[in-house]
Amino acid sequence: MSLAERILQGDTRAAARLMRDIDDGYASAREELKLLYPHSGSAYLIGITGPPGAGKSTLVDQVTEAYRRRGKRVGIVAVDPTSPFTGGAILGDRIRMNRHADDEGVFIRSLATRGHLGGVSRSTGDVALVMDAMGMDVVIIETVGVGQDEVDIVKMAHTTVVVMVPGLGDDIQAIKAGILEIGDVFVVNKSDRPDADRTVRELTTMLEMNSARADDWRPKVMRTEAHRGTGIAELVEEFETHRSHLFGSAAINRFLAEKGARTFMEILKDRLFAEVFAPLEADGRFARIVDDLANRRIDPYSAVEAVVAERFAAGADN
Amino acid sequence: MSLAERILQGDTRAAARLMRDIDDGYASAREELKLLYPHSGSAYLIGITGPPGAGKSTLVDQVTEAYRRRGKRVGIVAVDPTSPFTGGAILGDRIRMNRHADDEGVFIRSLATRGHLGGVSRSTGDVALVMDAMGMDVVIIETVGVGQDEVDIVKMAHTTVVVMVPGLGDDIQAIKAGILEIGDVFVVNKSDRPDADRTVRELTTMLEMNSARADDWRPKVMRTEAHRGTGIAELVEEFETHRSHLFGSAAINRFLAEKGARTFMEILKDRLFAEVFAPLEADGRFARIVDDLANRRIDPYSAVEAVVAERFAAGADN
Repeated sequence: MSLAERILQGDTRAAARLMRDIDDGYASAREELKLLYPHSGSAYLIGITGPPGAGKSTLVDQVTEAYRRRGKRVGIVAVDPTSPFTGGAILGDRIRMNRHADDEGVFIRSLATRGHLGGVSRSTGDVALVMDAMGMDVVIIETVGVGQDEVDIVKMAHTTVVVMVPGLGDDIQAIKAGILEIGDVFVVNKSDRPDADRTVRELTTMLEMNSARADDWRPKVMRTEAHRGTGIAELVEEFETHRSHLFGSAAINRFLAEKGARTFMEILKDRLFAEVFAPLEADGRFARIVDDLANRRIDPYSAVEAVVAERFAAGADN
Repeated sequence: MSLAERILQGDTRAAARLMRDIDDGYASAREELKLLYPHSGSAYLIGITGPPGAGKSTLVDQVTEAYRRRGKRVGIVAVDPTSPFTGGAILGDRIRMNRHADDEGVFIRSLATRGHLGGVSRSTGDVALVMDAMGMDVVIIETVGVGQDEVDIVKMAHTTVVVMVPGLGDDIQAIKAGILEIGDVFVVNKSDRPDADRTVRELTTMLEMNSARADDWRPKVMRTEAHRGTGIAELVEEFETHRSHLFGSAAINRFLAEKGARTFMEILKDRLFAEVFAPLEADGRFARIVDDLANRRIDPYSAVEAVVAERFAAGADN
């Protein structure tokens, strides 16, 4: 029986196995994903991002609890900063798993931000698809950071949540501006801190001035103290309000088209590279190119051109 | 006269123009880069990264000043968090430029973390190459963040500097662990803060336990108060010590080979994608694929496979 079939029958070990295969970039995972695809599409995806230290993990825990009390099954994809050399995710499944270890309605998977060949946003989307097909009602995608990777990841979600925290320092204005347009819901966590009011006020002002949104949703700034559970019920209500808005308007069509376009482009990029690079590596040519580059016998642009020209030579006449 | 020729004659406006072309992904930029390549390779590249709020910009300013006093020309590539929709870098050239506006020995360029088709690490490498060919003695690459993008960017530098700041919160342990192996020099900035000693101690301990380094360099933890200039002279000395170590050992060969390999792979990935995607977009087929995906008439894996199989069909018999 294929992993996909086992997963559709509720086998969580098969799901974990497929997620590992996805993370390792196995070609076989693609076939399983194709089989799962028709069974996906009903989960509600929530993307949560924000700078380090904003308390996102605690918030995700609390939101998970809240959805569990509503009887929903919750999947969590935690995209963690990685050790680039050892390749492991730092905040591993183990730490997180402990909190919901006895709850069969919660499935957690940490992904390392390796991005060697395929980008981490690819793996994240694939893992979210597996959770969706597993029958998770809500899939929370959590990332640390504010870079392009994180933006790509949270854009996959129906509702994008940006978590801020009072008084993070110099770069925060830049970050705020950078994420204003991607957030559907803003959270000022640790709102018991003395400068929380100012952060809420600044964010609200910036949101009011922001006219770049393509839809007519007006993001709100919510306050939470995640470690005490304060503000979580209101936050989940706001998620549901956004979800209803999205699915009740033309915005859902644009969302699905944009997501389809991005997913297609990412997979295409990976596949093309794998197709051309694998033979170069196998026959030792890549090693020679690297040696030429290290010794400056060729520039990288010309080296690539030679490979591309050769590979597409047969189709160049079309 | 080509942009490259003008740049080699010291025309900074031509350099700024080429950097814009690089950022915009113009194919013509590749030809210019090929011309510049033989004139590059002598600049000393310093990569500086760290979480938001660590005071990196101020530190970069101070390091720039220090190198200017040594009579060195300094290029700065600032990779800034971007507004994903408007596409502009937030902390723009203008803010930074003001500080060194009258100094012809400093050239600054901000890059937006867009990463649409080509990744930002590609553009950063290309811009650093232009600065190198312009005759900058030192090129500082500054990024905000701790994700894979930032790791890819700072790995291009001869010396990688990780800036930390006391007491940043929960996720900091994860980040520390993630960057331990990439840092050649660690800086605890804002070292006048009360918990600075603890941060220095923790970092030092973690570095001592870390055995994953491929070379025999032992990274130090330096203390600075960048806004007052404290510790900057010592920091620059440490950069130079690392530089001598790198160039005086076999480590430089490994560095050049790894950099060559990464650069080649990144350019290859971009070129292949552009080669295949452009015609799909031009003839309207991409729009039809997106429509099929949005309406779930096909899954993205199968959609990509069809395109790849078709494009490589002519060469499949080889």
